[in-house]
Amino acid sequence: MANILKSFISYPETHEFPIQNLPFGIFSTKNDAAPRAGTRIGDFVVDIKAVAQAGLFDGPLLGGKAKEVFSKPTLNDFMALGRPSWREARAKLQSLLSDSNPTLRDSAQLRSAIFVGTSDAIMHLPCDIPDYTDFYAGRNHATNVGIMFRGKDNALQPNWLHLPVGYHGRSSSVVPSGTPITRPCGQRRPDATKPPVFGPSVRLDIELEMGFFVGPGSEMGSRIDINHADEHIFGVCLLNDWSARDIQNWEYVPLGPFLAKNFGTTISPWIVSLDALSEFAVEVPAQDPEVLPYLKDISGTSGTYDIKLEVDLKPAGSSKFSTVSKGSAKYLYWSFRQMLAHHSVGGCPMRPGDLLGSGTISGETSDSCGSFLEMCWNATKPLEIPSDDGSGVIKRTFLEDGDEVNLRGYCQGQGYRIGFGDCKGVILPAKP
Amino acid sequence: MANILKSFISYPETHEFPIQNLPFGIFSTKNDAAPRAGTRIGDFVVDIKAVAQAGLFDGPLLGGKAKEVFSKPTLNDFMALGRPSWREARAKLQSLLSDSNPTLRDSAQLRSAIFVGTSDAIMHLPCDIPDYTDFYAGRNHATNVGIMFRGKDNALQPNWLHLPVGYHGRSSSVVPSGTPITRPCGQRRPDATKPPVFGPSVRLDIELEMGFFVGPGSEMGSRIDINHADEHIFGVCLLNDWSARDIQNWEYVPLGPFLAKNFGTTISPWIVSLDALSEFAVEVPAQDPEVLPYLKDISGTSGTYDIKLEVDLKPAGSSKFSTVSKGSAKYLYWSFRQMLAHHSVGGCPMRPGDLLGSGTISGETSDSCGSFLEMCWNATKPLEIPSDDGSGVIKRTFLEDGDEVNLRGYCQGQGYRIGFGDCKGVILPAKP
Ligand SMILES: [Ca+2]
Ligand SMILES: [Ca+2]
Ligand SMILES: [Mg+2]
Ligand SMILES: [Mg+2]
Ligand code: NI
Repeated sequence: MANILKSFISYPETHEFPIQNLPFGIFSTKNDAAPRAGTRIGDFVVDIKAVAQAGLFDGPLLGGKAKEVFSKPTLNDFMALGRPSWREARAKLQSLLSDSNPTLRDSAQLRSAIFVGTSDAIMHLPCDIPDYTDFYAGRNHATNVGIMFRGKDNALQPNWLHLPVGYHGRSSSVVPSGTPITRPCGQRRPDATKPPVFGPSVRLDIELEMGFFVGPGSEMGSRIDINHADEHIFGVCLLNDWSARDIQNWEYVPLGPFLAKNFGTTISPWIVSLDALSEFAVEVPAQDPEVLPYLKDISGTSGTYDIKLEVDLKPAGSSKFSTVSKGSAKYLYWSFRQMLAHHSVGGCPMRPGDLLGSGTISGETSDSCGSFLEMCWNATKPLEIPSDDGSGVIKRTFLEDGDEVNLRGYCQGQGYRIGFGDCKGVILPAKP
Repeated sequence: MANILKSFISYPETHEFPIQNLPFGIFSTKNDAAPRAGTRIGDFVVDIKAVAQAGLFDGPLLGGKAKEVFSKPTLNDFMALGRPSWREARAKLQSLLSDSNPTLRDSAQLRSAIFVGTSDAIMHLPCDIPDYTDFYAGRNHATNVGIMFRGKDNALQPNWLHLPVGYHGRSSSVVPSGTPITRPCGQRRPDATKPPVFGPSVRLDIELEMGFFVGPGSEMGSRIDINHADEHIFGVCLLNDWSARDIQNWEYVPLGPFLAKNFGTTISPWIVSLDALSEFAVEVPAQDPEVLPYLKDISGTSGTYDIKLEVDLKPAGSSKFSTVSKGSAKYLYWSFRQMLAHHSVGGCPMRPGDLLGSGTISGETSDSCGSFLEMCWNATKPLEIPSDDGSGVIKRTFLEDGDEVNLRGYCQGQGYRIGFGDCKGVILPAKP
């Protein structure tokens, strides 16, 4: 811990955005409404466009490009450049922010051009998302849902252990943290002996997921090799795949979920690089049956990450968030690499900025589940949250109007944490 | 037929692109590689950017905007303007191309700036497609597939008559007519007692569909009313949803088709407006059970179109296309309006350029089916196509490498036809 890299910006040891993190995002300010690239350190957003305009990106890959690529309102062009460029940018920012580099440290003028207080920064989506895909790669989640709806003996579908099951999502529905979510209306069929009814979902749920963004893509008809997949992964965020269970249950046969998902998907605003996460990599669970060769990761490094995750709920009328679940991204059965290799193996074109969700991540106990469906076991075991004044409890099985959910995640290093920021949304009543 | 609108450009009565059509598309030429807006009449592409630059769009809506909106490499901005602007543009083009208007007719200079021979035009996708959704709105198709895989008594799933079933597709995989399609690799499980195998699909199929493009979109949390839906539909194209049946069969439970679809989806290059199609509107089939109110079309006009459709196949090694199926878009059970109203009813944001596919359109007989799966009844009844020299037959159940498929569609008016152009693709062998 003695030699840990330090910044001239100070922040506590438990801060999510130390100099070891340096995620990428897109922000704007009141004074300059043009969305632009930024990174985050402590309670500051670092204006990367301003860093570029000051001529500080002088490396071999970005020297000639930084001004253009970082003046864009999205990160797509930067994502397309590839991992060597991402590394060059992050290394340069790390150097500029370190306590041993006088460039910013000793220049009030540069600091005032480059540092923005987080309370002045408005966070946007990090990129245009050409396509969004959601997987179903958490074994505990798939098993829990399977037990609830098909019984213990048929919990996992026959294909589940052979491939990372996934479906195409709706990119237009992806929003940054803080965007309110309107309760969706749709068809549901509460009584199977009667026709379906139309109205607001009464089983509104969350899905605690990780998302990752594609950097360089692939041409139609070609594929991304699993052992090269990390070079195509720009970074990772938190993702809440809001889900209307009652709508899903009626609509999903045989083509999968549709209106149950496409009313909103929230992501945390900062994209954390695989380089920042690398020391938290862990082995994926043993895969038995053995996977087909195109899914076999022979790179020798581990494919998933021990990111501590939690679900925080602020019930309507309450003034504070309570943690209702604590888990970890290590419970994913399929790695991001496997998801990307599978997605592209048939020739599907991938593009810079594509977002892939992991699927719900649940641990092994009811207090580590990634959905209310599982935490409350299909509404049979309500959550009990102490009321503000401690005089009673607030019960929940699914979300009510006014409830606010935040997903949190961090990796615990030696003397620092790597986090993601909020992944928050409040439920607005359905529109009639 | 006496008073039919005529152009100074001549073409036969059976031509797909008379002055009554005037679809929109994006093209470029060798001499000017910048993609730009065009329409089509007879064997000419009309350069709409050049029309705008000549100052010929002088109407109240487009007068101040045409130069900018038609200089874009996609139609998205034009799509976003809304139906009154689309109508103004089409009416102006119709006037400029009519035999009674001297503006172009008598100006060799303007004609040479504006007319491009179709053999010199390279067609592109008409727009960036923010999101692509595919429905399953053909009752005969859903019934045929249901009978094959679940038996006659359970052919239609319980939800099918209550809502237009759909799933999110992959917008990156949508390509213009003429783009070759590489046979996808993936997992399939030919023997249910053994593990799945990996390799090229051996059941490569087509889906004969119509596609339609969204114009003005909708905000997250709001919806598009069915009685207003036509104002949000920019126009219609042919769509081939290439499908790998063996991959689909193994992967699709429970989240729907994924790699079975995302290797390629072909569309015809010209977007035909609802105004050009309006006189071919027909009633949707009687919907029983009665649909929920949000799907009830009380506009008083008909919601689907009698577009004659055909599937043409040029088997590998053969020199000519043979028509293997003839149907009509009138067999759709759900209208485009119903699809759009359903898609947005839960608050899913729609954006200009979104593409919605109808689902496979099959008629009532085996020679009017929209997929080889149905035409050949799950590979039990091979198609027999006369060989070039007439000495034998070529048999097909699914597509082989080198096979080329073209979808064709037209409406037959009084003295003219409204068509769509080719929707063509040739199958390349899988990449190892
Ligand atoms: Ca897309
Ligand atoms: Ca999309
Ligand atoms: Mg999910
Ligand atoms: Mg289809
Ligand atoms: Ni409207």
